[in-house]
Parts: sequence; structure tokens; C-alpha cells
Amino acid sequence: MSIEAKLTELGLTLPEAPAAVAAYRPWIRTGDLVFTSGQLPFRDGAIAYAGKLGDELTEEDGYQAARQCALNAIAQLKAATGDLEKIQKIVRIEGYVHCAEGFRGHPQVLNGASDLVAELFGERGQHTRLALGINEMPLNAAVQLAMTAEVAD
Amino acid sequence: MSIEAKLTELGLTLPEAPAAVAAYRPWIRTGDLVFTSGQLPFRDGAIAYAGKLGDELTEEDGYQAARQCALNAIAQLKAATGDLEKIQKIVRIEGYVHCAEGFRGHPQVLNGASDLVAELFGERGQHTRLALGINEMPLNAAVQLAMTAEVAD
Amino acid sequence: MSIEAKLTELGLTLPEAPAAVAAYRPWIRTGDLVFTSGQLPFRDGAIAYAGKLGDELTEEDGYQAARQCALNAIAQLKAATGDLEKIQKIVRIEGYVHCAEGFRGHPQVLNGASDLVAELFGERGQHTRLALGINEMPLNAAVQLAMTAEVAD
Repeated sequence: MSIEAKLTELGLTLPEAPAAVAAYRPWIRTGDLVFTSGQLPFRDGAIAYAGKLGDELTEEDGYQAARQCALNAIAQLKAATGDLEKIQKIVRIEGYVHCAEGFRGHPQVLNGASDLVAELFGERGQHTRLALGINEMPLNAAVQLAMTAEVAD
Repeated sequence: MSIEAKLTELGLTLPEAPAAVAAYRPWIRTGDLVFTSGQLPFRDGAIAYAGKLGDELTEEDGYQAARQCALNAIAQLKAATGDLEKIQKIVRIEGYVHCAEGFRGHPQVLNGASDLVAELFGERGQHTRLALGINEMPLNAAVQLAMTAEVAD
Repeated sequence: MSIEAKLTELGLTLPEAPAAVAAYRPWIRTGDLVFTSGQLPFRDGAIAYAGKLGDELTEEDGYQAARQCALNAIAQLKAATGDLEKIQKIVRIEGYVHCAEGFRGHPQVLNGASDLVAELFGERGQHTRLALGINEMPLNAAVQLAMTAEVAD
């Protein structure tokens, strides 16, 4: 089944790839690698999950925020390649969790991204990951996530 | 116009590429990629912008700190290539903003780096970006910034 | 002397490469680069250094934590290559220090990783580095560290 078909099966629509929020680009290709900029949990043009984990947001909110960030990153990969089937490997996910003192559920939050990537890309979706807490996040977003992928033409 | 000429036009002098502050190197080349170490806003051997954004420093201070970090990163790219014209693409800027509770102006701060890169490298300076808040920074620096570039011989 | 022999000389045993703590992989190879996931200071299946630097942990604890993370990352590189002699360059170490308000000893802490890499890999161990403070860390670990290496077959 194609990745686009799996998206449909999951009831997901690939959003329009979000524009960069300042003077940079949402993705760059160098050699066989595509890097995305840090993706925020934008949905329909607004931050869908704002606030800090362990304060106004729950771990489940964080999971959904990470899933939305990943969906936006995948939209960037689509924009970069024109066809998600060209993705050979999701090389790396860097996940930054906007969190209050004492929050430790970063891995569970970022599984929102890792699970989506596994559902869509299967074996090709196996990736390395960084999971870090951040004291203050642009636009008060709950999560920021960058993805690196290996592509083939 | 060459990038060195644009530097002159902007009234900027490429600093001596700052040495690493511990047991590592300021840049490494692998294949066609050059990675810099995290650059701090050193100027004439001292941290020019120390403190936290949203506390003792303003957003404009942060913008200038990011610009200084970027200038230092470009000095590393010069050291790595011998000639800035060999830079094909600025692939990625990772920007870390030393900030107090409640500060959210990371994108505006890091535009200090993105704007300089755009002024100097034009289309080749289009890059992906991460913008993150950091609670405590080495040497109390206002900003830390790493750059990745694609080079050609 | 081989890198494995140097490990023995230092009285170190390469641990079993720690498993990922969630839905991702501990390393991925793309082209000539191997990326590791963020490594925590696991030793014998438990976090050997838990807490915040500048609070319950000292700078020396942090140095040892960074050294343990680096040892775990090297175990991942061994798993990725089968033979540490295939490592051409340690390209990059990203070091994240779990720290309390006012802690500034990140470079000294991360020298625990940089020194080990230098002892083992010599000239090939020269690397770029990021050193950042993090307010909250998964599993309360003192340090998280990711390594990127260039390999040859």
C-alpha cells in the first residue's frame, strides 16, 4: 500500500506544508538528504497545542502535538520530493518538548511522532531520535520537531 | 559581487575563526558537508552578549548576538574552505536562545543570523532552521548557533 | 594500537549497545554517515547519573555521565559498523546537560565525552560539538549525547 493510501486509511490528510515563520526555508535538500526546519504543531494555520507539558498540557496533549508536528514534517518531505515513495529512510527525528519543572514524559510525547512515522513508512520509517526538554518555545508551541530523511530519485 | 565584497559593503570584517573553548574542533568536513561547532557571540576574544533574553537582554540584543554568532560561523566556513565562494548552500542553522521564563521572541532573535546569511549568500543562503530556548548556556552567552553548509571544491 | 585495545588499556569494556527507550532505533546509517539516537548515561541497565548539575550533582559527576554516554554511543557505532576501525571521523557530538539555574560548566562536563573520544580515536576523534543546558531530561538523566560518525567499508 502506498504511503498516501496509508494516510487516507488513518483518516489523515497531508496538510499544506507550513511556511517558515521567519527568514528561512521549511526544507533543504543536500545530496540524498532532506532536512526540515523545526516544525511546530500548526493545524489550519494556528498552533493547535500551545503551552507547557506538565503544566497546562497533559502527556496525551503532547503525544497529539508531536503527531501533528510529524504530519507537518511529512508534508515538507512531500514538498521536497514530490512523492513520498521516494523516501528511503527517515534518518532522524529531533524532538523538543516545551515543559515545566519536573516533567519527564518526553519519550511518551515523542512517540506521537515515532508511531505515525512507523504506521506510514514501516521499515523505512525506523529512525534515530533525540528527546529533549525546552524551557521556552517559539509561539508557546508544545513541541518542536525536525526530521531528516534519505531520498532517492 | 563576491561574498567577501558584500562583507566589506556591510562594514563587516570576518573575525579570526574563534578557537573551540574545550577539547574539540570548530569545524569538520565530511563529504560535501561542513559542520561547525556551536558558535558563541565572541567578539575580540570576549562574549559580546552575555545574559538571558527576556531578563537583562532585549530582543534587539539577541538579534545582534545571533548576527555575531553567524559571523563567527561564517569565519569557520572560510577556515574550512579557504574561499567562501565554494559554499553551495547553507543547509541548516541551529539556533539556541538563552532565555528567561516567558520569553517567546526566538524567531526574531535568530533572524539576526538568517538576515546576515541572506545578505551575504543570497539564494545560496536559504537554509533550514531550528529555534529553541535554553535555560542555561555555556559562558552565559545569549545565543549559541551551529551552521551546516554544502561545499564544492 | 587498535581502538578495542585502547579500551582495554583504559580499563573500559564496551557495554552492550543500549536499546532505544521507545519506538525508534539506536542508530541509522545513511551514506557514509552513522547517526546515533540520544544516548543516556545507562550502565548495567540503569541510569548511572540521575539529577541536575548544579543541584544534586557536581561537575565531576557530569564529566563521568558524559563519559558514560560517549561509551554507549561508541557501542552503537560498533553495532553499526561491526568494527570500530571502520570509523574515519567522529563528525559531531551534541551534548545536552541537565542543569539547574545558574549552572555554566557545560564545556567541562562534555569534556568527559570529548576526552574519551580523543583517547580512543586520536586524530580521527577530532569532532565538532554543541554544548547546551536543558531544563528537564528524559528519565532524569544528567546528560544526553548524540554522536555522528563518518564510516568507510
